[in-house]
Amino acid sequence: MVDPSKLIIEKSATPKKKYDDKTKLVFGKDFTDHMLEIEWDQQKGWAAPKITKYHDLVISPAASSLHYALQCFEGMKAYKDQKGQIRLFRPMENMKRLNRSAKRLRLPTFDEEALLNCVKEYVKFDKEWIPEGRGYSLYLRPTIISTQNTLGVGAPSTALLFVISSPVGPYYPTGFKPVRLLADDANVRAWVGGTGNYKLGANYAGGIQPQAEAAAKGFSQILWLLGDRVTEVGTMNLFVLWKRKSDGKTELITPPLTDGTILPGVTRDSIIQLARQWGEFEVSEQNFNIQDMLEASKEGRLLEAFGAGTAAVVSPIDSITWKGNEIKVPIEADLGSGKLAKRILEEVYAIQYGEKPSPWSVVV
Amino acid sequence: MVDPSKLIIEKSATPKKKYDDKTKLVFGKDFTDHMLEIEWDQQKGWAAPKITKYHDLVISPAASSLHYALQCFEGMKAYKDQKGQIRLFRPMENMKRLNRSAKRLRLPTFDEEALLNCVKEYVKFDKEWIPEGRGYSLYLRPTIISTQNTLGVGAPSTALLFVISSPVGPYYPTGFKPVRLLADDANVRAWVGGTGNYKLGANYAGGIQPQAEAAAKGFSQILWLLGDRVTEVGTMNLFVLWKRKSDGKTELITPPLTDGTILPGVTRDSIIQLARQWGEFEVSEQNFNIQDMLEASKEGRLLEAFGAGTAAVVSPIDSITWKGNEIKVPIEADLGSGKLAKRILEEVYAIQYGEKPSPWSVVV
Repeated sequence: MVDPSKLIIEKSATPKKKYDDKTKLVFGKDFTDHMLEIEWDQQKGWAAPKITKYHDLVISPAASSLHYALQCFEGMKAYKDQKGQIRLFRPMENMKRLNRSAKRLRLPTFDEEALLNCVKEYVKFDKEWIPEGRGYSLYLRPTIISTQNTLGVGAPSTALLFVISSPVGPYYPTGFKPVRLLADDANVRAWVGGTGNYKLGANYAGGIQPQAEAAAKGFSQILWLLGDRVTEVGTMNLFVLWKRKSDGKTELITPPLTDGTILPGVTRDSIIQLARQWGEFEVSEQNFNIQDMLEASKEGRLLEAFGAGTAAVVSPIDSITWKGNEIKVPIEADLGSGKLAKRILEEVYAIQYGEKPSPWSVVV
Repeated sequence: MVDPSKLIIEKSATPKKKYDDKTKLVFGKDFTDHMLEIEWDQQKGWAAPKITKYHDLVISPAASSLHYALQCFEGMKAYKDQKGQIRLFRPMENMKRLNRSAKRLRLPTFDEEALLNCVKEYVKFDKEWIPEGRGYSLYLRPTIISTQNTLGVGAPSTALLFVISSPVGPYYPTGFKPVRLLADDANVRAWVGGTGNYKLGANYAGGIQPQAEAAAKGFSQILWLLGDRVTEVGTMNLFVLWKRKSDGKTELITPPLTDGTILPGVTRDSIIQLARQWGEFEVSEQNFNIQDMLEASKEGRLLEAFGAGTAAVVSPIDSITWKGNEIKVPIEADLGSGKLAKRILEEVYAIQYGEKPSPWSVVV
């Protein structure tokens, strides 16, 4: 098993120059001095974890991570609070999801507490790279790839787990900027019987071309449909706040995790839990159709819509185009978002940066 | 563009020991002395192609081939005929499909003739590795991967095209051995609006776990269903020969390429063309359901079923289990297959090994 007590630390002899200006950081472009690596072999199990210099990987050209997409990953962040303490946000959720993804691909699974302990040591080791301030963080990318060096299609007998990290700034550095979406039913992100509820590289490949085409038409992201059903937005979960048709009650709604087409996002779950604690409106995990949104818009019942994910926390939507119809989503001009999206961002930030005590924020 | 006139050849200074016994070759396990490599950069385009020692790749741990499955590949073979000439089978079809796959992922596209010329030079350079004899060949694996070293989800600005090759023996060294299939509607290989009609790594990842589970239950392969519709078998296209219900005529049927769920296999197309030339029975590209096969079996109209692909040419099926029902498929005991599967194998071999003149067989 992954054994944090065997952790080997090899400090880089050639530290990089750190970013000059944290406000100019680009997501996932610059990486810290070190990475965490753990090799796996079917016979020998997990090798000793190693914190070592950030380096290129040496991989067989036959590796099944490069041919059959035997790869899965996580996205999580380390934050520096006002006391200078390092914090992670619900990190066990990422460990659990990575394990589920690995299992789905017959990649090796691991002890979740043990891996988290290694990740904590790694983050502490590169803590100088965590930018300070609300909205700033160190983005962590735990990844498992097959290193099987033969071309038969099957479960790998060797693999590599690694974590790299990149200092990042707020998704919206100058305040929210709502996004225009293209609702796409020609391209389907995930389907029943597929792998949309795991965080696999394979779920992302097919979306890049449709996204580029949407961008060329002036849209920021795709609203992924499955037939008429609304599923996700870009690489985020989707939330809609509306007065529901049946009884006029205010309802925060997001597609449920029941059919395997929706990624069980940590931010998604956090928003659901927070909103239920508030108890001020209905919170539903239910399917709905794009027509329902169009109708709600026409009837003045559509209040807000936003994406939710680790990168942005929330990403407000102001317009959705579907088969030539534009669904306008209300935005408070002074916020650049709806009131709920803004409230969620503030609440999640307060927890992530340790301003508000919460078991979700784990001091490293 | 890919320029074969700029081909650089760096001969390996440390040639490997060649296989001792060609009958013990394992698919995709041993590789030849060299590989073909062509780097691509958005600014500079394709670099000079290079034949160089087979070597591990040096890739950024942030490469989007490892995170978002930006990878596609081909499977094709080089054959040695009785005169010692090297032959490829419809190689332009593989070049075209690779180009289509690359375009789908926003990986770089290329001049198909030019890449084929490089592949030919590469095969000639490593020709000593092509095992002789019917059923033996050098399996070629052209691959394109993103080498983009940043984590943003998007089209890559750098990539690598490479070809590796592995000597292989016949899929059925001691004659056909028909396979038992599990018809699976819980796991879906490809769906309308997805990428099943491109040869992407992303199409293979999700199948490995269901395949392993089927194997644990004693089945050789999965028959992939989309609802009740029959689509593919394992990593092959599917053909069924039956007396069709409507008019009792003998019909060779395979699912059509119309909805994007079926890989346009080169062997698939070759079988359709050959059978149409024979003109002895109906040849249809039409959808059919697993219930149709069950019914045909019960009524004695089911004559044959087989997979079709580059690895095996044809792979006879003798049994399909679906929701507890077993569909028995007739097999000629002396052939280990049906008559049609055997005839197709012989015909395709005769072309591939240059025994029968055909424009499909290209002397290198």
